[in-house]
Amino acid sequence: MPIKVAAGIDIGGTNTKFGLVDRQGNTLTSDKLKTAQFADQNFAQYMEAIHESIDSLLKNYTSPLELIGLGFGAPNGNFHTGTIEYAPNLPWKDIHSIKQEMQKHYDLPIIVTNDANAAALGEMKFGGAKKMKDFVMLTLGTGLGSGIIANGQLIYGHDGFAGEIGHSSFILDGRQCNCGNKGCFEAYVSSIGILHTAREMIDNYDGQTKLASIDSKELSVKHIHYAAKEGDQLAIEIFKNTGRSLGIKMAEIVSYLSPEAIFLFGGITKAWDFLYPHIEGELNQRVMKVFKNKVKVLASELSEQNAAILGASALVW
Amino acid sequence: MPIKVAAGIDIGGTNTKFGLVDRQGNTLTSDKLKTAQFADQNFAQYMEAIHESIDSLLKNYTSPLELIGLGFGAPNGNFHTGTIEYAPNLPWKDIHSIKQEMQKHYDLPIIVTNDANAAALGEMKFGGAKKMKDFVMLTLGTGLGSGIIANGQLIYGHDGFAGEIGHSSFILDGRQCNCGNKGCFEAYVSSIGILHTAREMIDNYDGQTKLASIDSKELSVKHIHYAAKEGDQLAIEIFKNTGRSLGIKMAEIVSYLSPEAIFLFGGITKAWDFLYPHIEGELNQRVMKVFKNKVKVLASELSEQNAAILGASALVW
Repeated sequence: MPIKVAAGIDIGGTNTKFGLVDRQGNTLTSDKLKTAQFADQNFAQYMEAIHESIDSLLKNYTSPLELIGLGFGAPNGNFHTGTIEYAPNLPWKDIHSIKQEMQKHYDLPIIVTNDANAAALGEMKFGGAKKMKDFVMLTLGTGLGSGIIANGQLIYGHDGFAGEIGHSSFILDGRQCNCGNKGCFEAYVSSIGILHTAREMIDNYDGQTKLASIDSKELSVKHIHYAAKEGDQLAIEIFKNTGRSLGIKMAEIVSYLSPEAIFLFGGITKAWDFLYPHIEGELNQRVMKVFKNKVKVLASELSEQNAAILGASALVW
Repeated sequence: MPIKVAAGIDIGGTNTKFGLVDRQGNTLTSDKLKTAQFADQNFAQYMEAIHESIDSLLKNYTSPLELIGLGFGAPNGNFHTGTIEYAPNLPWKDIHSIKQEMQKHYDLPIIVTNDANAAALGEMKFGGAKKMKDFVMLTLGTGLGSGIIANGQLIYGHDGFAGEIGHSSFILDGRQCNCGNKGCFEAYVSSIGILHTAREMIDNYDGQTKLASIDSKELSVKHIHYAAKEGDQLAIEIFKNTGRSLGIKMAEIVSYLSPEAIFLFGGITKAWDFLYPHIEGELNQRVMKVFKNKVKVLASELSEQNAAILGASALVW
C-alpha cells in the first residue's frame, strides 16, 4: 500500500521549498527552486515548474507514495480565495491564483495561507502545541508574522488576512514600518527592528562595547548574540529591550485572546536565555490578575529548516 | 404545544434582570431583582431567589411555556467553569458556581459567560450581526467590555477569559485603570475615561464652554452630548478625541482579527454623528492597505434595555 503524503510548499522571495510529508510529520523527500529564477516568466510557468518538481519527487521516492493534497504557505497567501495578493517580495505583483493554476494539474485539495499561519498549524500538528486549542505563534525574521489559533481553529478573519499582529501599533506614530504605517510592532522586534534599536543604543552608549567596532551595515542579530554570550553589557541590554517589547505586546495578546501559550519562532530564539526573563517579567506585570502567571511563553519545537514545509503540509493534514 | 423559551439572566451590580426569550428574540416576559438586596445573604440564597422568580414568570405567562435552558451574563462569568470569579461590583467575592447552584433546580443546559460576550452573541443571534461570522463587539459603559466572534464562534480563550480588549494597553504606562494596571483602553473610552479626558480638556480650555459651569463631579457624557448638539466647540472636541481613540484601537483590532464589522454598544452611541467620522478616519488611516475601507463600524441594533437579557438567552439558543 502506498504511503499517504501531503505536499508542503513554502513560497519565499529567495527560495521555493517543497517536501512530501507523512501523517506523522516526517518529511520523506524535499527539494527547492530559486524563486527569482522565474522573475521573467509568468506565474503560470512558475506553478508549472512546482508541479513538475513535485511529480519528480513522487516518482523518484524509494517506496510508492500517494499524494492526498497540496498546502501552500506564501506571503499574503489567502485561505479564502486561494490567491497570493500583492506580495511585496515576489516577482509577480497583483493577485495570482495558486489554486486555479494547480487545479489544472491535480484533482486534490489545494490549500493556501500565509507563512505564519502555516507555522502555527505546523506547531499544532507536529510541534509543541499538539494538545493546545488556543495559542498564538509569532514568527520573527526580517518581518514579524503571526498566526492565531482559537477554539482549535486558525483565525482567518472575514477576508482571510487576520493575524497581522506585526502590524498592530506598538508605539503610537513611532518608527516608520515597511508596510507604510508608523509604530508597528514589526518595526521594533523583527530583525530589522532589533538592529534599528541596536544602532540607536550603540550611538548613545558611553561604555565599551564590541558592537561599536562592527560596521553598522554589517551588524546582525548574530553579532549581538555572540557579544552577549561574551558578557558585553550593551548586547545584553539590547536583548533586554527586545524581551521587554515582546512582553509588552504579549500582555496585549493575552487581553485579546487568553491563549494557553505564545510561541516564538525564528533565529532569535537562539538568544532565549537573554530574552526570556524580560519577556516573562513584562508580561506578568502587565496582564490583569486573572491572567497572571498562567500563559506559557515557549520556543517553537519545529526546526527552522523544516518548519515552513511542515506547516504548509499541515494545511492538508 | 407550549412555546419554547430560553431564560436570559443578566447579573449586574445594581440589578439582576431576567426574561424569557423565544427563538425569534422576543422577550415574552421579564422582571428584575435588586442585586444589592442580597448583600447580607449568601450566593446560594441569591440563586434560589432567581430560580423562584423565573418559575413565577413561567407560571404566570398567558400561554404555556417550555423552558429549554438558562443563560447567564455576569461580570467575570466563565464559560468553561460556569462560575463568577472575583467580580468587583458584586457583593460576593471569591469564586461562586452559578452552574452548580442552578443544577439543584433545573435539569437543563446552564450556560455562563461575561456580559460583553453575551452581548456579542445577542448581536449575532438577534441583532445586526445575523449573517456575520467574524466581528467584534465593544460595550461602552462605566467600563469597557468586548466580545470576539471568529469563525462564527465566541473566542473564550484557554481559561474562558478572552476578550478583555478594554484592558489591553492604549497608552503605555498611561492613566491608572480600575483593574490595577496603567494605560488600559478602558481608562480612555469608557464613560469614566471620557469624563477624565473631558475634565482635563475643560481645565486647559481657553475658550468659552458650557461644560465649565457644570460641577466636575456631576459632569456626565449626556451633558457633553447635549452641549455638542448646541454647538459647544469643546464638547465637540471631546467626542472627536474619543472617536480618534476608538479608531486607533480599532485599527489594532483589525490587525489581529480582520473582522467584517466592529459594533459599539452603550449610551455613547447616541452621540454617533459626533464620533463616527473620527473613528472611521483614524481606523482607515492606520490599518494596512489590505484592510483599508473594508471594515464596517456599526452601532449595535439591540436596544439597551433588552440587550443583556437577549444576549444571555442567546447563549442557550
